[in-house]
Amino acid sequence: MTAQYVYINDTFIAAEKASVLITDLAIQRGYGIFDFFKTIGGKPIFLQDHLDRFYTSARKMHLTIPYTPAELKAIIAELMEKNDLPDSGIRMTLTGGYSADGYQLPETHNLIITQQHFLMNLDLNTSGIKVVTYDYQRQLSGMKTIDYSMAIWLQPFIRENNADDVLYHNDGQVKEVPRANFWMVNEAQEVITAKSSVLPGVIRKNLLSLENHPYKIVERDFSLQELDHAAEAFITSTTKHILPVLQIDGRPVGDGKAGKISSALLNLLVEKVRKN
Amino acid sequence: MTAQYVYINDTFIAAEKASVLITDLAIQRGYGIFDFFKTIGGKPIFLQDHLDRFYTSARKMHLTIPYTPAELKAIIAELMEKNDLPDSGIRMTLTGGYSADGYQLPETHNLIITQQHFLMNLDLNTSGIKVVTYDYQRQLSGMKTIDYSMAIWLQPFIRENNADDVLYHNDGQVKEVPRANFWMVNEAQEVITAKSSVLPGVIRKNLLSLENHPYKIVERDFSLQELDHAAEAFITSTTKHILPVLQIDGRPVGDGKAGKISSALLNLLVEKVRKN
Repeated sequence: MTAQYVYINDTFIAAEKASVLITDLAIQRGYGIFDFFKTIGGKPIFLQDHLDRFYTSARKMHLTIPYTPAELKAIIAELMEKNDLPDSGIRMTLTGGYSADGYQLPETHNLIITQQHFLMNLDLNTSGIKVVTYDYQRQLSGMKTIDYSMAIWLQPFIRENNADDVLYHNDGQVKEVPRANFWMVNEAQEVITAKSSVLPGVIRKNLLSLENHPYKIVERDFSLQELDHAAEAFITSTTKHILPVLQIDGRPVGDGKAGKISSALLNLLVEKVRKN
Repeated sequence: MTAQYVYINDTFIAAEKASVLITDLAIQRGYGIFDFFKTIGGKPIFLQDHLDRFYTSARKMHLTIPYTPAELKAIIAELMEKNDLPDSGIRMTLTGGYSADGYQLPETHNLIITQQHFLMNLDLNTSGIKVVTYDYQRQLSGMKTIDYSMAIWLQPFIRENNADDVLYHNDGQVKEVPRANFWMVNEAQEVITAKSSVLPGVIRKNLLSLENHPYKIVERDFSLQELDHAAEAFITSTTKHILPVLQIDGRPVGDGKAGKISSALLNLLVEKVRKN
């Protein structure tokens, strides 16, 4: 089931006709930002966090969203009504826009809002994933840009290494996976995610700000060596919530099974999602 | 004067209607490659070098160009005939293509060939340019990808520093400017361009392979400290040939004027272009 409508700039159009001219700076120079949130039963989840980040990414990337957050919310509501997809993922993209010389950043940009059916699994996926490590620091890492060149380029490398995704580290300092933040639980039961030069994930933020629980959840940088001794590891993202990482570079994390703290944190997170 | 026709995949279409669907991986994930060559008086310059690089970029980026080089040459010739722009720039872009999930690299990609009027200046531009340095290593630097996120993002920074362009260095090792290779002439009259992790520029290649001249032209890495003592500096690109760099971070290079060796090399290069 695919959505019927896409919103581009100021118009709802049929998804299969949604296009941009080739002079757009996304096509010419890979320049743009986006954000992505899910809806569950017709309700957008952590919408304010996603809007905050979308406007922050835009400002930091010298882009202007042509609507106020209230106007954008109204457009999203109208798109949801037209498409009638209660369980969905909604992506807001702002490309560099049409550049006369294909290089200078223009004053106006192209806003594209798409919606697709997506049913969120609220239970822990105990099958987890396997990751392979790769030395790479995402550029402009504090903003949610469309630049996933390295991630796409590494797809064959990931397959060759019998992994599901790649874990970036910068000269041994653990960072993130391309579309999710990465966490480890150490032997002292601290729950840790990298602090510097990573995407400010919305699930990451909501996990760091969880209340009324016995866990020590911290953001601080940590190394691959420290990760070697992890009891549990997992990734967090809008579509995954908490997904266990069971193997890193072919070696099991802890006992190689989905961890108890990962499971407990997911329950707390789902509670927060339900209250949202 | 703008071109009337653009070639997309298998069709010539009116430039103002040339578009791609928003599911293209260039828009979704900034993934694609391109190459760009000029025509002078209806003759493509260093075409074989550009085609070689385009096919190499494609292969290294796991992309397949849907034509043989001979077929691509025929398409380019037909585009040139249709547009009737003897002095022009021609850009071949290969985007990631339409991805069902907006992430996995599809089997087929989108080929876009555009042409625009461009009159090459064969004389030395003695006004030169001023650059400001910035610590940055281009990712996937050996391939000509569409990723210019950093360059576009730095446009306000360049303006604020009263410069015309940015010179990237990686922790003090001089690299390149976003759309051109960078060269220095040292006090011993060696002509030097960075060897590692830079774009394999076509003018760079043709300068390194110049014959019958008294200059020592070398590729080796060099530092900002060595650059401080340069007698001359310049950039090389398809649209600039050799363009003097007269100021770096507000300080003059050598005597602050276009250099004699830069000028002599341009003459040799133009000779090669005329023979091409």
